[in-house]
Amino acid sequence: MRAVDLIRKKRDCGVLSREEIDFLVSGYTRGEIPDYQMAAWLMAVWIRGLNRAEIAALTEAMLYSGEVLSHSEIPGKKVDKHSTGGVGDKTSLILAPIVAAGGLTVPMISGRGLGHTGGTLDKLEAIPGFNVNLSLAEFRRVLCECGMGLIGQTAEIAPADKKIYALRDVTSTVENVGLICASIMSKKLAEGIDALVLDVKTGSGAFMKKEEDSVRLADVMVETGKRMGKRVVALITDMDQPLGRLAGHSHEVLESVEVLKGRGPEDLRDLSLELSAWMFFLGEKAKSVEEGRRLAEKMVATGQALEKLRRGIRLQGGDERIVDEPERLPQARFHAEVAGQTSGYVSAIHCEQLGTALAMLGGGREKKEDKIDHAVGLEFHKRIADRVEKGEKLVTIHYNSDAKLAEAKTLIASSYVVSESAPREKRPLVRRIIGA
Amino acid sequence: MRAVDLIRKKRDCGVLSREEIDFLVSGYTRGEIPDYQMAAWLMAVWIRGLNRAEIAALTEAMLYSGEVLSHSEIPGKKVDKHSTGGVGDKTSLILAPIVAAGGLTVPMISGRGLGHTGGTLDKLEAIPGFNVNLSLAEFRRVLCECGMGLIGQTAEIAPADKKIYALRDVTSTVENVGLICASIMSKKLAEGIDALVLDVKTGSGAFMKKEEDSVRLADVMVETGKRMGKRVVALITDMDQPLGRLAGHSHEVLESVEVLKGRGPEDLRDLSLELSAWMFFLGEKAKSVEEGRRLAEKMVATGQALEKLRRGIRLQGGDERIVDEPERLPQARFHAEVAGQTSGYVSAIHCEQLGTALAMLGGGREKKEDKIDHAVGLEFHKRIADRVEKGEKLVTIHYNSDAKLAEAKTLIASSYVVSESAPREKRPLVRRIIGA
Repeated sequence: MRAVDLIRKKRDCGVLSREEIDFLVSGYTRGEIPDYQMAAWLMAVWIRGLNRAEIAALTEAMLYSGEVLSHSEIPGKKVDKHSTGGVGDKTSLILAPIVAAGGLTVPMISGRGLGHTGGTLDKLEAIPGFNVNLSLAEFRRVLCECGMGLIGQTAEIAPADKKIYALRDVTSTVENVGLICASIMSKKLAEGIDALVLDVKTGSGAFMKKEEDSVRLADVMVETGKRMGKRVVALITDMDQPLGRLAGHSHEVLESVEVLKGRGPEDLRDLSLELSAWMFFLGEKAKSVEEGRRLAEKMVATGQALEKLRRGIRLQGGDERIVDEPERLPQARFHAEVAGQTSGYVSAIHCEQLGTALAMLGGGREKKEDKIDHAVGLEFHKRIADRVEKGEKLVTIHYNSDAKLAEAKTLIASSYVVSESAPREKRPLVRRIIGA
Repeated sequence: MRAVDLIRKKRDCGVLSREEIDFLVSGYTRGEIPDYQMAAWLMAVWIRGLNRAEIAALTEAMLYSGEVLSHSEIPGKKVDKHSTGGVGDKTSLILAPIVAAGGLTVPMISGRGLGHTGGTLDKLEAIPGFNVNLSLAEFRRVLCECGMGLIGQTAEIAPADKKIYALRDVTSTVENVGLICASIMSKKLAEGIDALVLDVKTGSGAFMKKEEDSVRLADVMVETGKRMGKRVVALITDMDQPLGRLAGHSHEVLESVEVLKGRGPEDLRDLSLELSAWMFFLGEKAKSVEEGRRLAEKMVATGQALEKLRRGIRLQGGDERIVDEPERLPQARFHAEVAGQTSGYVSAIHCEQLGTALAMLGGGREKKEDKIDHAVGLEFHKRIADRVEKGEKLVTIHYNSDAKLAEAKTLIASSYVVSESAPREKRPLVRRIIGA
């Protein structure tokens, strides 16, 4: 078998066998197939596509390129959630403690933010002392002790994905359903989970702007997970506006704590409880999603989830006092307001622009090497369908440097579409459920 | 400007500007853009294509990546011919002496064989002592002294092409009209020529099997050459069967000498004279192609072309005695026959297979590093429309090693399609002329 022939085959719209995909992935991971051949193959894949069997084979090849965890020493089911990312999407910090408090184990391996979206690891690092770089042995110990652990991708987990993802990033081969599915699912299945809830975002702040694209990705990921014997469901959820009222790392930790205290904004609370409900259901802690929902609500109401968060933070070296003393989180020195320029109703939000503005202020990275300012953030005062008066606050910007403030302000101001009348219908937070 | 954005642009069917193409080619040549980004871009180009303006920009960027020769110290026009390659295609060895004898200068920079096709440099190296690796200074001296010089691509000539071609070879991005055109034309235009005759092969032994594809390539190359102020014409010529009676390096040198002595097979003689005629016409040594043809015939009949060949060989360090003593060329130790299995008429020849069989016997290379056996060869006894009796010789194989003999024999035998009746019509050797 030769890489050059497999590149040609995909280029010419051929379908690769499991053996051929294994050959490419394992050869590339071992360094026997050079970057340039993988890059040509990835571009051919991006343009020609992969069928379901090829996606499954690619996912498995990437999964077995490294260690696949097993937590058989921990009783009960292991479940996780993965989100495709958006602006203000902080549900991991909320549902992990809820679900762990409810008696399931959540071995969560997360990623960092890129482009306009935030990443769970970066948010956790806003908590002073929090260490996301645990060894697998430490990760297991934390899981055993409190039922939840939140770490980054280690060298042992899906090394093929790590290498391929880095290459995709610099060769414009990121946005492809098959490649995205294999990347996400190989990492998630390596966690040693029994069930997975996928939160596939759709709308102006998601990577997939069109609902049909989100559904297609969800569909492929659900099928791939099920082929590998996992219980998987995907919720297609709204990202036409930020989730919650706050974006930015410290701010999102704060808002997550609020939800675990039974407060916080309705949309964020609702989605976090819904995702937790599905995790309880798939993890067999509840006979129905409704029962799961009640269990989730109970974990919040009794304070058990909040207690779990405290314990989780402590076990990973973080300062758990932030739960009650949020001023211990990094604070921005300045704030500025973006006000409405006309009166009317918010009819649409260019949500990706808000994420880009936040990144511009230091709250995201353009390149992998960039450092993040955990203190900067955006506070959203208006949601779609809200009445806004001319001069009224739309967004409060929390910032540390004037460098790109003007640019960010302009971007934020232009993100809000204000019309004379409110939008006709309210679109639900959870648009569709795939694979249930 | 960032390479990753230009890759995305082409991936998404965009059209790149001259500046963008320059950025990619010069950045890659200087080593600032890595192989993997170029590979992804090449695959996007292979699949999405390049328009005429992009092809012209790519050709120019590759041309000016290195030195562009000028032979202003040599009086008269400089002309060259380029063939897209086939089996038994040895016209360069014939027309260079004819055209140089007729008073034009032929600064020919040639390539090596790859796959099923032979290359001029390899054929020349069958002549004991012949040195194709002249420095540019030596090349100029040879050109001044005898009006013809035949060398390989030096480091100074179109280095971008050298680097890009090597990458295309291992990333399955070879067969694309725009990339082929830029590769050929950047090298040929760097020779410092005024006019160029393109011999674009079509048929079962050509890289382009379909006439429409050959025409498209010819059309693009002619346009690109004309855009850059050169006189260019392309002949679409038959490669449904080998050109001449002999293939293999020593054998092709021998057959070329035969043609220059006024003998040799009709098809080879005819095409060599026709190409020479066009070179004389474009190089303004003849007022018409017919007049050019008569001049070419005269150069052969008077022995002036043969004398030019002798001189050219001597100037490049070769043993000119091979002209009269062909036994001085490398000789194969053994020969074997492939006979017809049924009686009838040769209705078709899978010509690429014959080239592959020759390569298999050591007369070609699979990888660039492979050594060539100049002595092995094939002698073709039957052409399309010829009557063949069962048991009659089709091909004589000249070989040195039994290693792949059986395999080569089978391949050769299966290359001949013998039918009950002769094909209805004889297809002309020169199918079409583009750009005249």
